[in-house]
Amino acid sequence: MSAKTPVVRIEPLSPLLIEPAVRQALLEDLGRAGDITTEATVAADATAHAVLAARENGRIAGLDFVSTAFRLLDPKIRMTVRAPDGCDVEGGETVALVDGPARSILTAERVALNFLGHLSGVATATANLVALVAGAKAHVVCTRKTTPGLRTFEKYAVRCGGGRNHRFGLDDAILIKDNHVAHAGGVRAAIERARAAAGHTVEIEVEVDSLEQLDQALELGADLVLLDNFSVDELARAVRRTAGRAVLEASGGITATTAAAIAATGVDLLSVGWLTHSAPALDVALDFER
Amino acid sequence: MSAKTPVVRIEPLSPLLIEPAVRQALLEDLGRAGDITTEATVAADATAHAVLAARENGRIAGLDFVSTAFRLLDPKIRMTVRAPDGCDVEGGETVALVDGPARSILTAERVALNFLGHLSGVATATANLVALVAGAKAHVVCTRKTTPGLRTFEKYAVRCGGGRNHRFGLDDAILIKDNHVAHAGGVRAAIERARAAAGHTVEIEVEVDSLEQLDQALELGADLVLLDNFSVDELARAVRRTAGRAVLEASGGITATTAAAIAATGVDLLSVGWLTHSAPALDVALDFER
Amino acid sequence: MSAKTPVVRIEPLSPLLIEPAVRQALLEDLGRAGDITTEATVAADATAHAVLAARENGRIAGLDFVSTAFRLLDPKIRMTVRAPDGCDVEGGETVALVDGPARSILTAERVALNFLGHLSGVATATANLVALVAGAKAHVVCTRKTTPGLRTFEKYAVRCGGGRNHRFGLDDAILIKDNHVAHAGGVRAAIERARAAAGHTVEIEVEVDSLEQLDQALELGADLVLLDNFSVDELARAVRRTAGRAVLEASGGITATTAAAIAATGVDLLSVGWLTHSAPALDVALDFER
Amino acid sequence: MSAKTPVVRIEPLSPLLIEPAVRQALLEDLGRAGDITTEATVAADATAHAVLAARENGRIAGLDFVSTAFRLLDPKIRMTVRAPDGCDVEGGETVALVDGPARSILTAERVALNFLGHLSGVATATANLVALVAGAKAHVVCTRKTTPGLRTFEKYAVRCGGGRNHRFGLDDAILIKDNHVAHAGGVRAAIERARAAAGHTVEIEVEVDSLEQLDQALELGADLVLLDNFSVDELARAVRRTAGRAVLEASGGITATTAAAIAATGVDLLSVGWLTHSAPALDVALDFER
Amino acid sequence: MSAKTPVVRIEPLSPLLIEPAVRQALLEDLGRAGDITTEATVAADATAHAVLAARENGRIAGLDFVSTAFRLLDPKIRMTVRAPDGCDVEGGETVALVDGPARSILTAERVALNFLGHLSGVATATANLVALVAGAKAHVVCTRKTTPGLRTFEKYAVRCGGGRNHRFGLDDAILIKDNHVAHAGGVRAAIERARAAAGHTVEIEVEVDSLEQLDQALELGADLVLLDNFSVDELARAVRRTAGRAVLEASGGITATTAAAIAATGVDLLSVGWLTHSAPALDVALDFER
Amino acid sequence: MSAKTPVVRIEPLSPLLIEPAVRQALLEDLGRAGDITTEATVAADATAHAVLAARENGRIAGLDFVSTAFRLLDPKIRMTVRAPDGCDVEGGETVALVDGPARSILTAERVALNFLGHLSGVATATANLVALVAGAKAHVVCTRKTTPGLRTFEKYAVRCGGGRNHRFGLDDAILIKDNHVAHAGGVRAAIERARAAAGHTVEIEVEVDSLEQLDQALELGADLVLLDNFSVDELARAVRRTAGRAVLEASGGITATTAAAIAATGVDLLSVGWLTHSAPALDVALDFER
Repeated sequence: MSAKTPVVRIEPLSPLLIEPAVRQALLEDLGRAGDITTEATVAADATAHAVLAARENGRIAGLDFVSTAFRLLDPKIRMTVRAPDGCDVEGGETVALVDGPARSILTAERVALNFLGHLSGVATATANLVALVAGAKAHVVCTRKTTPGLRTFEKYAVRCGGGRNHRFGLDDAILIKDNHVAHAGGVRAAIERARAAAGHTVEIEVEVDSLEQLDQALELGADLVLLDNFSVDELARAVRRTAGRAVLEASGGITATTAAAIAATGVDLLSVGWLTHSAPALDVALDFER
Repeated sequence: MSAKTPVVRIEPLSPLLIEPAVRQALLEDLGRAGDITTEATVAADATAHAVLAARENGRIAGLDFVSTAFRLLDPKIRMTVRAPDGCDVEGGETVALVDGPARSILTAERVALNFLGHLSGVATATANLVALVAGAKAHVVCTRKTTPGLRTFEKYAVRCGGGRNHRFGLDDAILIKDNHVAHAGGVRAAIERARAAAGHTVEIEVEVDSLEQLDQALELGADLVLLDNFSVDELARAVRRTAGRAVLEASGGITATTAAAIAATGVDLLSVGWLTHSAPALDVALDFER
Repeated sequence: MSAKTPVVRIEPLSPLLIEPAVRQALLEDLGRAGDITTEATVAADATAHAVLAARENGRIAGLDFVSTAFRLLDPKIRMTVRAPDGCDVEGGETVALVDGPARSILTAERVALNFLGHLSGVATATANLVALVAGAKAHVVCTRKTTPGLRTFEKYAVRCGGGRNHRFGLDDAILIKDNHVAHAGGVRAAIERARAAAGHTVEIEVEVDSLEQLDQALELGADLVLLDNFSVDELARAVRRTAGRAVLEASGGITATTAAAIAATGVDLLSVGWLTHSAPALDVALDFER
Repeated sequence: MSAKTPVVRIEPLSPLLIEPAVRQALLEDLGRAGDITTEATVAADATAHAVLAARENGRIAGLDFVSTAFRLLDPKIRMTVRAPDGCDVEGGETVALVDGPARSILTAERVALNFLGHLSGVATATANLVALVAGAKAHVVCTRKTTPGLRTFEKYAVRCGGGRNHRFGLDDAILIKDNHVAHAGGVRAAIERARAAAGHTVEIEVEVDSLEQLDQALELGADLVLLDNFSVDELARAVRRTAGRAVLEASGGITATTAAAIAATGVDLLSVGWLTHSAPALDVALDFER
Repeated sequence: MSAKTPVVRIEPLSPLLIEPAVRQALLEDLGRAGDITTEATVAADATAHAVLAARENGRIAGLDFVSTAFRLLDPKIRMTVRAPDGCDVEGGETVALVDGPARSILTAERVALNFLGHLSGVATATANLVALVAGAKAHVVCTRKTTPGLRTFEKYAVRCGGGRNHRFGLDDAILIKDNHVAHAGGVRAAIERARAAAGHTVEIEVEVDSLEQLDQALELGADLVLLDNFSVDELARAVRRTAGRAVLEASGGITATTAAAIAATGVDLLSVGWLTHSAPALDVALDFER
Repeated sequence: MSAKTPVVRIEPLSPLLIEPAVRQALLEDLGRAGDITTEATVAADATAHAVLAARENGRIAGLDFVSTAFRLLDPKIRMTVRAPDGCDVEGGETVALVDGPARSILTAERVALNFLGHLSGVATATANLVALVAGAKAHVVCTRKTTPGLRTFEKYAVRCGGGRNHRFGLDDAILIKDNHVAHAGGVRAAIERARAAAGHTVEIEVEVDSLEQLDQALELGADLVLLDNFSVDELARAVRRTAGRAVLEASGGITATTAAAIAATGVDLLSVGWLTHSAPALDVALDFER
């Protein structure tokens, strides 16, 4: 049986990024004395066949973390993927098959599921939002509001969900927020200083909270404008006023209820912090067959 | 103005545990080129006064991570805590005051808030559940279903919420689940092997999914029994049958809707995975005064 | 020729725990310029066959560290174990055979032997003490008095010697010592505070230095009692007085001379710090055959 | 009261070397949940005054590790040294005074003592051996048979004991052992190759096990010669035969019983592995005054 | 005497980036036994006053690395900067004054100078090139051809020299080179794929080696075009043809001899690998006053 | 086609030393989002055949870093070496062949070349200088003036160039410089203190800046003497005066122009800092065949 085709096809993350995180998580769980339950109750030579399955509908992300957890713990574990990252699954659907030494599978199980559940949760929340804005041109993008230490992985999960990534860090682009404007002494001064400092390859984005500020940002040649907590009406007016001169990003108050209307205004980006900091984990489990 | 008194008084985590995580998160955000926006737009000698405030009701957890982020970035930042970890706050309430170099505060802001929002989210979800079972003797406990790399911190946040911690890792106690039972060849064999391996200081807990299995576990002297996905009726019968011979832990299906009824059965522990893997972040923000 | 059967069968430590320690030790020995003697005097393509042998009687512990040192240095080295961890060996007896590139074996030799000698020394001291108390029900247990950085490994070696492990760290169980009692304001206050803080899954042990304190600890429901520097007579009276209500741990003054008499009192645990901090290394060597 | 004057005055190790080791040891002991006993039983604002005292006669080494453990855990702890590294102390003698928050002192106590006991044990064993050869010109030196991860510190402890250090690692000097000789095809070939490879600043030492081999090594211009397991008579003859042409190192079978006679032969160095791998810890303790 | 005013004013790097690199370099130099010369020859309480001075004309970069080396080694060292980063100095000119314990200054000296000499070398090479193109609008930019492990620091040094930074890493912008074009099946396919993958905030640059390819890139809307090894004539024609539709980067063959002519063509960027991989160190020294 | 024979045959560095440095460099280049250009433009299953070639004449050093970069990024890449470390190559000559997944090769390319170019640059500068002093007995040696973090590797590259290594670190030998002499109170005091501190296996070198100081150093038995900034005449007189009583090291002002004359004076060592801190990178490139 061949693997399912993903809804979105995502480039895998480098093992150089994945391995240290999985190693740390395994050590966090093993502690100083290891899996004392499994060692006490399961024979060293016992083997197991287990099915990694979804318990609810969702979008899968993070299987390379699962296979890395199993491999780091025991290279003899074999995993066959049925629903790769970027696939939609239904509750009960098989995601992967896992075969090998029973002890090792039991010991690595929780760490593997913790990664998969968390990242699939982010991907699922993203996919759901992306579906709600399907007709519009807008992209759903994530922010820097990520779980400490997991940013690269959560951004990957957003991509698995069909979303796009905004800045990966403070050095990734210039985003002038209200506090920068205040300290610079106005939008004009802020953009001019940023332009002078930034060089040719860095995009400049400005956060505005009124149409007047938008006009000023456009006039000064901002590449992107973040429209902070604009109403749907204001967003629509901002789109008309901008007329393609800059990329427009709507931010604030974007929920499942409001997303379609916001996207329908014609903005380019819907930026959503809760995709990465508040998405509930997807329920995935490892069922052992006996 | 003195600091508020916490609802629950929690021992602080050692800086030896906090610092490496905050350092990693700051480097994750600084990337290779640092905060190019702030450097371009804010003068090096500008100072700022900012208020760390809640945007919604919740329980605070994680202020030592906030102060560590500010201190690692710039020792000249001063932070005065108004609502320490373990306090309930309302939307709009001040949590702490932050004074110092404007650039440094702006650069550390997101990392500080990412920790505080995540941990306060866990604490808030816990506190809400604890409130729902207030009359009963049951404790709310968390599990090993935690965000990779953050287990120690999320367990701390659960304590700030008034909950208690179950196992910190695989080496922390013996918890015999269905798969261990299957591999050991029955509950009796599993408990006996565990008893032989464990020595005098390790508690033994057994997961059961029927009253018959509970009887067997009690007869074999399990210290704790995890009642997996029992109905409220079954839980009540389990409590009567056990009559204090073991600590009883209810697990599965515990939500805001069901918690009170489950606690009312007289079980000792309500064990809840979603406190740590699916609690939404608490909305906290840093407001700069001008 | 098949491998010898161990006296005690010990679960192996995870490579995730072993590898970083061995890697650090190899780098400590290689320094910045590597093994300048071997590179100068041994041809790059020379191969060697070497016998890892005991030079005195003892209990083996640490062969996974040996194989890891050889593998990290050069995957082409092959090692065949004859006397696995947990075996008793006599002076002159072969522990393992090592084949491969001569240079690599010579370079890794000292690090491999340093681990094996140290851990086998701990195992041997433990096995000798265990043998002295063979008739009694008491277990020999180790303490937190371990070599910095090697606790997990020394605790493993104690298990290879037939002993058991007491607390792995400060977070592993509650052990109320005299200073805690003093600060809490008495044994009763200390136990009550500990009970309130500890939750259902943590054992509480109290150190006492008189029969009166023992009575108090028993009355307050301590799970374990550490009898500090009791005479053999006092220990016997303590056992009678306790009558199974708590696990009793004898501590202080336990030597090869006193162990049998102490164990004969009927205590449950003999706790011995010198197993881990003062056991002399077992003399093991690598003999090259020409 | 001023600090005691050390018997040998030793340059302190750099904090850059000490801190990472102490930090690792503290984390090893704190685990994931920290010192649950102290947090449960000792008030957060309690202070303590404690005396670090020897329980038996010995040579002190490692106080910078003690102060680092206290400082890393809590900068508010103050330590006053009475008997600095390199001092001889008697059982009961005060080594240092420790004042500060009671909790922090209790939590750091074991790690601090584990370092101090281990290193003072090495220093004491060394000092005892040095005393036995006091009249002779020979120096007591340690080897690469050290506890993995602690080599730099054990070598420091040997210096505190009045001994000297042989090679710190494989890259530190050329030491041609029997296996190198065998692979090189004889002593002559080995020394010539080493001379060619080594350059001007590296000393060449050769291990010999007969007077004939000594003659050959001398003839070939070895800077040092290791006399492996020579009898006292053979050592004396070797000294006469060498007549100052090389530094002579006696190795093997050097114990408290044999050391004086071996030193009396006139060799330059007595090289002793058990100083670092088998010295028992010195019994030091922290006594709290109430 | 106040500090000199820099030619270019550069934002300092975060200590979070600098400290780990300096710590590693100090440990690299200290090895296992530390500065045995200084400890043998200089009294522990000796103090010194030293002048950090340039031995040749150049641009200073890296003084925070110098102060960090001194501080990590010994917090008692005081450093007063006279010619901060971004200043031009002449041979013999004082850069900073250093006061404190003589031993510590001597031990940290080489590491401090290695950083300062290397980074000032990069800054000086950059400043020299920037001076040669002073009249033109072109910026001098560096590449990813950096010394492994030092990229962030060398990019900082380029800024100190008045240059600008191109990509910090593979994830920083899209730069389609000839091999990407070949694998994509042509410039058009490569740009289209990049545009589809990149989202709104990432600039797309294309490397071309002919005017025909330039036309194609412009037509497809490349934001930047890298003109690889174009002659001065071709560069001039490229500038005319582009007419401001894209940023133009000249690359290949840019030396002190050719830079002015290349800049005079009107290109926007001169991209130079040798600034970071081949700039000779600036000769700086620490002179002790007696 | 078999591999070329190196001019000098160098022992390879241990992978334990190489791997961490290459891993760090890859992560430095991958950043948080990886190689976004290659992922966008090159198909995941595309393969490539590439030729690693020199673009100018030089001495090769660092191919193990290249193969490690490729292997860490993707174990499926195969590399065949044609001109191993220590070989001289001409511009255009093939150094190695690289086959495998096109994406992986493109992503690892820059890191691989950064190591190879830097280390081959050091080797080439060394080889050129070694050639200039070919007739004399003098060895070319490097110093501690190395790029921070790369000392071990640059010293290896010097060996590949036919040079030798002076001290690897401050703990490697005693080198008494002018400042040590000043603090010790004269050359005599400095040497005597060093002799007392150093033990039998450490060489003592003294820096002198006049023939009078040389006489004093010789009289006091220095093993090596560093002649600092001596003219050729003075060097010749120093050689005659020393008459083999110590190894003589010329330092300062050694360039391609002066090296032959200096070597002809009969000194033993020419010590050259710029080999490691200022050698330009060798131009090596990866050419993809289509």
